[in-house]
Amino acid sequence: MYNERIKKTGLEDRVTTAAAAAGLFRDKMVVASSGFTKAGDSKAVLKALATRAASDPLQITLLTGASLGHGTDGLLTAAHVLQKRMPFQVDPILRQGINNGEVLFIDQHLGESAEIIHEKIIPGIDIAIIEALLINEDGSIVPTTSVGNSPTFAAAANKIIVEINTSVPLSLQGIHDIFSAGTWPDKQLIPITETGTRIGTSAIPVDPAKIAAIVFTETTDSPAAINERDDKTRAIAAHLLQFFDHEIKKGRLLHSLRPLQSGIGKVANAVMEGFIDGNFHHLTMYSEVIQDSAFNLIDAGKLNFASASSITVSQDCYHRVFSNFEKYKPHLVLRPQDISNAAEVIRRLGVISINTAIECDIYGNVNSTHIGGTHMMNGIGGSNDFARNAFLSIFVTQSSSKAGAISHVVPMASHIDNTEHDVDIFVTENGLADLRGLAPRERAKVLINNCAHASYRDELNDYFSNACKAGGQTPHLLQEALSWHARFKENGTMH
Amino acid sequence: MYNERIKKTGLEDRVTTAAAAAGLFRDKMVVASSGFTKAGDSKAVLKALATRAASDPLQITLLTGASLGHGTDGLLTAAHVLQKRMPFQVDPILRQGINNGEVLFIDQHLGESAEIIHEKIIPGIDIAIIEALLINEDGSIVPTTSVGNSPTFAAAANKIIVEINTSVPLSLQGIHDIFSAGTWPDKQLIPITETGTRIGTSAIPVDPAKIAAIVFTETTDSPAAINERDDKTRAIAAHLLQFFDHEIKKGRLLHSLRPLQSGIGKVANAVMEGFIDGNFHHLTMYSEVIQDSAFNLIDAGKLNFASASSITVSQDCYHRVFSNFEKYKPHLVLRPQDISNAAEVIRRLGVISINTAIECDIYGNVNSTHIGGTHMMNGIGGSNDFARNAFLSIFVTQSSSKAGAISHVVPMASHIDNTEHDVDIFVTENGLADLRGLAPRERAKVLINNCAHASYRDELNDYFSNACKAGGQTPHLLQEALSWHARFKENGTMH
Repeated sequence: MYNERIKKTGLEDRVTTAAAAAGLFRDKMVVASSGFTKAGDSKAVLKALATRAASDPLQITLLTGASLGHGTDGLLTAAHVLQKRMPFQVDPILRQGINNGEVLFIDQHLGESAEIIHEKIIPGIDIAIIEALLINEDGSIVPTTSVGNSPTFAAAANKIIVEINTSVPLSLQGIHDIFSAGTWPDKQLIPITETGTRIGTSAIPVDPAKIAAIVFTETTDSPAAINERDDKTRAIAAHLLQFFDHEIKKGRLLHSLRPLQSGIGKVANAVMEGFIDGNFHHLTMYSEVIQDSAFNLIDAGKLNFASASSITVSQDCYHRVFSNFEKYKPHLVLRPQDISNAAEVIRRLGVISINTAIECDIYGNVNSTHIGGTHMMNGIGGSNDFARNAFLSIFVTQSSSKAGAISHVVPMASHIDNTEHDVDIFVTENGLADLRGLAPRERAKVLINNCAHASYRDELNDYFSNACKAGGQTPHLLQEALSWHARFKENGTMH
Repeated sequence: MYNERIKKTGLEDRVTTAAAAAGLFRDKMVVASSGFTKAGDSKAVLKALATRAASDPLQITLLTGASLGHGTDGLLTAAHVLQKRMPFQVDPILRQGINNGEVLFIDQHLGESAEIIHEKIIPGIDIAIIEALLINEDGSIVPTTSVGNSPTFAAAANKIIVEINTSVPLSLQGIHDIFSAGTWPDKQLIPITETGTRIGTSAIPVDPAKIAAIVFTETTDSPAAINERDDKTRAIAAHLLQFFDHEIKKGRLLHSLRPLQSGIGKVANAVMEGFIDGNFHHLTMYSEVIQDSAFNLIDAGKLNFASASSITVSQDCYHRVFSNFEKYKPHLVLRPQDISNAAEVIRRLGVISINTAIECDIYGNVNSTHIGGTHMMNGIGGSNDFARNAFLSIFVTQSSSKAGAISHVVPMASHIDNTEHDVDIFVTENGLADLRGLAPRERAKVLINNCAHASYRDELNDYFSNACKAGGQTPHLLQEALSWHARFKENGTMH
């Protein structure tokens, strides 16, 4: 087995257990781990580190691509290992640690998170843990189901621990496109002109002398949740598909649309699934994550090509795809996240980006991260990498939740991650607001009347018209602007 | 004179008066005009249009590069000509019209404002007015002191009115670099790898059949205000120059720094002037506007090259520069604003961006546009084009104003244009906050203690520590968060 997965000779003696590898870490170290939306993450060593910390406490700064698999961040938080964490997470226990101030969380644009290392803004990386399919003859590492920030981590780290995951089939080799634009002042163009353009190599260059340990695992990626379509998500998808049809009629889009980016979640999934039945073909994706819907679209003959930084799918889809990977391989490429999320490429390709909002204010400013303006949900992720540079920046959410107690269209967003300048289209199950070419006072009318829940529409219109009496480009009554959120906190309803 | 300025034969009969050209406009037309930060704007036809409207009312949508010269937007507003205006303005009368709801203002990223036309989101441009140095043999137009959106306007417009400005010396020819990346799906790379890279042509391609009128003017650009350094701006500049020195010592910057972008205003000017005395050399600029300070730096042998979309200088500087333009020409290039502000190039070049904030909250979210959260000042301009993609995104402002009645560091920004993700460094006369690699709770401490005015520091620290008791990644007390602004409105002070 070693021969197949460790092609470089002389590395066999570095094979060890996760527990032994966990012994390499010291207090205050800066640690980096592969992993992007639960794919291709460390499955053994980080967990072993949490176990070790129970008897031998230490604290680290942990950098990743994006989120790790189920439980890992939670175990590390519970063991008080995390002093600082960046750039993204989705773990309920870590979330608690962040919000009570125990863990310092730096919520970063995923496309820019490698820069903090390139520019030496944080101290160097002591140890990087990288899940691999295999180690090549030259010591280079072929990653598994994600690339994320691993090329940057491997280049910057003093030591590297490789987790070779034998559950990932070798047929995955060749799907990665590892490219670095370099660092200033020799930063290069990123010459991607189509979703499928390949510009790099199939493995991550690594100095074999830095490989401090090799750990074998056979644990598969944590599966994505299955997002069954419901009435609300179906309605949102229908509004959006109708809008695309309208844009095709107007001559502003072709039936192949433009390269699609879709965030994670029920709604985005429903929209993507909606393309199966619609009058769209030769679709392409330039996104962060390839999800179930992409494989369904490939099977339906609708999707020509998908570029992303990871493959994150449900358990059923995982088996379907990886047992027959040669079928899907010609349609896929996995890139480093500073390439999948590069402003340069997103703008050049004219991406249509679809992301989920927590709430949106009447002028179209979007909160993507903070519950009640204060408590972190997951992080900004790639939403603004895409929204800021997309041809069409679309945000979706339900109009209300908690049996109507919360309106997701509010007078003023309690936190802002995507400003009105970067929000073109907003969609709820009630309808779609096309905000392009509209001034704030126009945006408010369309947003309230098309998107807000019927039970909040009058209150929003009242707020808006009272605010207009006080004047301004973006009329607000500052004393009332956040009162809906305060009211919810106090009374359990925004009404 | 015609021979020198109109080289294409057969166009002489289109020479007419501004008043006659103003007769070409109809109600509800979409009109575009050259002009960027007061440079290279329409000086005759737009004013004649305002005059005409007094007796023959009409309303238009007006697009520009950025701001027009003194008074033009004001005259148009007073004559009720403006129904909609985009993407930027600095006029006190127009500002009033915007804030009382008479004029619909679309506040756009300057680097993206051409896109709304390329993508046919607004109806086509009926008439474009473009100030020119001359018309070439092939009908192409050489612009004057700015390029702005003129190439896009010229390509999209049904008719073009050319304002030939004889006050601008012919030696300016050759300074422009007109390039278009094209439109989807054939959008090209923007192959600029150094501030001085030339990738285009020296004139704007124009179909001569579209030239409906040619008007001669001899009015010079409105001069920029002279920004004398005062104690506060000197202190801000000193903090920033000290920071650059520190970064050089750390090995993160060279003495040539990286390409600089600087917004307009007293503080930015003071910082740029500060480079004259500091230990910096071979500086470069990749910016929107070339101001007095750039020419002073060239004269001092400190600045090698400046790339921007316009030259906007004081009256004294104007005469100094344009009477001896051959001296400065090798150091300058003027580009279309979708190139000067291109995400792709800004990120590749690793720009250091310095922009002025209206206010900043304790977590580093910046309000660049709205007074009291509601009333438009100028517009977002290029601040977020640069801040979002810069290697170092710096915002500057005074810590307090109106004799201490207003704190420019506040608990929560009343409007957000640049989110905490895009703000690396914040500077006031009190000090500098290096926010890189810090989580929100860390950012708050540094921002309050280094930047806030001493008289507000305790109140801000109280707010922050009370907010922390309620928890969260970004602790806030929503009922108090905007109370400082409300208090100022009511009592005339934030205290």
